[in-house]
Amino acid sequence: MRSVEAKKREPLFECLTVVGVGLIGGSLARAVRRLGLVERILGVGRGQSNLRKALELGVIDEIASGIPDGVSRADIVVLATPVCSIPALLEEVAPFLRPGAVVTDVGSVKEPIVKEAERIFGTPNPFVGGHPIAGTEHSGVEASFPALFQGRKCILTPTSTTDASAVERVRALWTQVGAQVVTMGGAEHDRIMGVVSHLPHIVAYALVATVDRVDRSSGNAYGFAAGGFGDFTRIASSHPEMWRDICLMNRDMILDAIEKFSACLGELKAFIELKDAESLAREFAQARRARARILNRAT
Amino acid sequence: MRSVEAKKREPLFECLTVVGVGLIGGSLARAVRRLGLVERILGVGRGQSNLRKALELGVIDEIASGIPDGVSRADIVVLATPVCSIPALLEEVAPFLRPGAVVTDVGSVKEPIVKEAERIFGTPNPFVGGHPIAGTEHSGVEASFPALFQGRKCILTPTSTTDASAVERVRALWTQVGAQVVTMGGAEHDRIMGVVSHLPHIVAYALVATVDRVDRSSGNAYGFAAGGFGDFTRIASSHPEMWRDICLMNRDMILDAIEKFSACLGELKAFIELKDAESLAREFAQARRARARILNRAT
Repeated sequence: MRSVEAKKREPLFECLTVVGVGLIGGSLARAVRRLGLVERILGVGRGQSNLRKALELGVIDEIASGIPDGVSRADIVVLATPVCSIPALLEEVAPFLRPGAVVTDVGSVKEPIVKEAERIFGTPNPFVGGHPIAGTEHSGVEASFPALFQGRKCILTPTSTTDASAVERVRALWTQVGAQVVTMGGAEHDRIMGVVSHLPHIVAYALVATVDRVDRSSGNAYGFAAGGFGDFTRIASSHPEMWRDICLMNRDMILDAIEKFSACLGELKAFIELKDAESLAREFAQARRARARILNRAT
Repeated sequence: MRSVEAKKREPLFECLTVVGVGLIGGSLARAVRRLGLVERILGVGRGQSNLRKALELGVIDEIASGIPDGVSRADIVVLATPVCSIPALLEEVAPFLRPGAVVTDVGSVKEPIVKEAERIFGTPNPFVGGHPIAGTEHSGVEASFPALFQGRKCILTPTSTTDASAVERVRALWTQVGAQVVTMGGAEHDRIMGVVSHLPHIVAYALVATVDRVDRSSGNAYGFAAGGFGDFTRIASSHPEMWRDICLMNRDMILDAIEKFSACLGELKAFIELKDAESLAREFAQARRARARILNRAT
């Protein structure tokens, strides 16, 4: 775990309200507090016991009584609830937002959220879509830590209607907590994530389901899953509801990614059917090189 | 790395000849020597520099001049060359095998090898198919170590023609070097490995190829591959020629496993298409539970 430099900076905001104080929202609050980037941090959420835990841990300063209270006192609102809930939350937040305040989110799907924000807020739009590419296998405020975003990418998805100063303030926030900020369109974000993140999860789920099915029908498959299987399928242990939501929200891009993957798998299958040794060796060698390139550029 | 108990045992064999002194063959030789299970270890192989390295490292006692020399002096011959080469090797080995000597292998596909041995050796058959489920990302004799098989499963695939005392002697060998020996038919082995080992490798290759293709056609995908991608695709960095050979030798079982996987993926795809939230959450939760069960039973 890399540590966030603890030197206090000039406050960027007076009052940060985090809606959904879990792993991501909690980690952002901790990082922002450690750096002195805000004066006060409020928490809003449906789970009172989680919010009390966040208060006890010093992640937030105060539990706001709800959206109206939390939003009306903030100059920055971060929506860190499950991704499916964000469009409706924008509608709830809008009436209480102070002039000049900014709203951002951390959802792993962007285009539907960005579109909804454009519809709700008009121009200039105080909403800046955000997606920090960070996380752990754990969830909840107890798993949060301030260095979570250190060295990780954070994608922002402003549109032509987004208030330019809101973008700069959200960019400054993520940069200061250690993330490398990248800007792109919401659809572009969803297309890329559909391939590099959502597709691998769905493939891992399908792979585990296959082994499970073989084991149930003819027994004996489980005991022989080698070490690689554990690594390969770790992401199939992710939160089922979160992945259900991502599948629903990024439906079209994910379907497209599955088609692309099926085409690649189909080619390998054809080479195996045809006993085409040369093509198999070529494809496998190419994949090995590509993986090395991918991991090089991702870090 | 667990250590092999260094207490010397009663020798099981006088002379072990290892054909192919790489990671697996070298590790078996090291374990057998440390335990004093054989009096002399000979190495045979095509790469003279690798054999000299094995000799320098004390993994083998002597480089045999070739198959005739190495095999005729051994009471156990272990074939640890690439899996595709083993059927032809059996043919080479047969004329020089001493009466009462046993032959085994470590290939990751079994049925074609077992069938070839039955054809070549007749009854009683001195060949016992073997597959230690162990390995690392590295290869070659320099990567070998005596504890490689400690606590790992080793599958033996004797047939109705196999000499019973040969099976017992090979079982004793693997048991003494720390493996848990399991016996099953060659076809059963290939069916299970097709699903739990070969399929995940092919899926990982296809996944890397998909990301590579998207990146080449529209750019920008690589930089955003998250940490999970590295874990998930580690096995796509395996040796291309080895996986080509496995695909060719276990063709039918692998094609069947790909079909089963494609059916599972197709179901998830249909749920996404239909926006069937309930089925998606159910399938994902089931996969999470199944993975926990699989890993529990595999260790």
